[in-house]
Amino acid sequence: MTTRRTPTGAAVLQPDVTQAITEAVLDELAEVGYGRLSMEAVAKRAGVGKSALYRRWRSKHEMISAVVSEFSVSRAPTSDTGSLRGDLRESIQAVYDWLTHPRFARILPDLIAESARDPEPADDLRSRIGGPRRDAARPLFERAIQRGELPADIDVELAMDLLAAPIYWRLVVRREPPSPDFLDQVTEHVLRALGARPVD
Amino acid sequence: MTTRRTPTGAAVLQPDVTQAITEAVLDELAEVGYGRLSMEAVAKRAGVGKSALYRRWRSKHEMISAVVSEFSVSRAPTSDTGSLRGDLRESIQAVYDWLTHPRFARILPDLIAESARDPEPADDLRSRIGGPRRDAARPLFERAIQRGELPADIDVELAMDLLAAPIYWRLVVRREPPSPDFLDQVTEHVLRALGARPVD
Repeated sequence: MTTRRTPTGAAVLQPDVTQAITEAVLDELAEVGYGRLSMEAVAKRAGVGKSALYRRWRSKHEMISAVVSEFSVSRAPTSDTGSLRGDLRESIQAVYDWLTHPRFARILPDLIAESARDPEPADDLRSRIGGPRRDAARPLFERAIQRGELPADIDVELAMDLLAAPIYWRLVVRREPPSPDFLDQVTEHVLRALGARPVD
Repeated sequence: MTTRRTPTGAAVLQPDVTQAITEAVLDELAEVGYGRLSMEAVAKRAGVGKSALYRRWRSKHEMISAVVSEFSVSRAPTSDTGSLRGDLRESIQAVYDWLTHPRFARILPDLIAESARDPEPADDLRSRIGGPRRDAARPLFERAIQRGELPADIDVELAMDLLAAPIYWRLVVRREPPSPDFLDQVTEHVLRALGARPVD
């Protein structure tokens, strides 16, 4: 790492430039994937110099990690509708919107494939995407337990898997168009799987 | 396509050569992925000439499709233990063994990533892997309906998704090691999700 004299460092990172770079990273990731993405191509697409990238992130890996994390964690399910059914339905919609986002539907499968060969994206998926998203979603289940809608001993980790797994499998792995009631059906199946009890 | 005079065409395809090529295709797919796999590398690894590959398959795409289909369909869940719980538990184990197979755990994520960009592997996943595997698994649910263990109106397509989706999400997407009772837990959750009734 180089040391720079930037007493007003934060001021030089213009938000609109950061935004343009972020969009360029997502576009490039969707088009060419993690392995073939280059800092040059991102800079060119964003209309900035490479130095603008390195002022923000130390490496390609760090840049991708930060951008994909921000994209994913800002879309984490955080519904609080007052009922488990309502929270699950909104959360499943949020997962659907995240996984089927036109660019992200190409980006995530690529990161998963890379993760089978490279520990860096694998660690990112766990610590900067999955981890924070799950931390955001966990209170949903804790509130339902407190309201008596879920047994206190449910497997919250598996419950969170069940929100996302059927969406990913149907839409991304199988690439089958969902029936109009698919998200409703997933919601009802998850409610039953968890032994949910309606509360008056 | 060229036309060849091979009246005893089947006889020239020695099974041990086919087997060596099949193993080489799986090894190469796991190592370099669909996009970078070359016929030359497969032939070299199998210890055969490229002509041995083209005698069997017309193209790289056709070769990969056939090999991955055979690998996957031969591992489709076809349990018939006499009970839904028994069949589901064995099927979930079979899905686990398929998805976490050392080579295939790298191959499938790569094919899924390619499928987001290229219709050929996408079509294969649907018609030559997913389709035949689901055809093999469907009778499991039909038998359970006949025995009265499942409601006649269950969504069999979603039921089949639920067998595989949590395994793929936990093991391949999240890369989290499963707890010792993970497959049992998935079985119990699927039974509840489907509204299964025990039968005497």
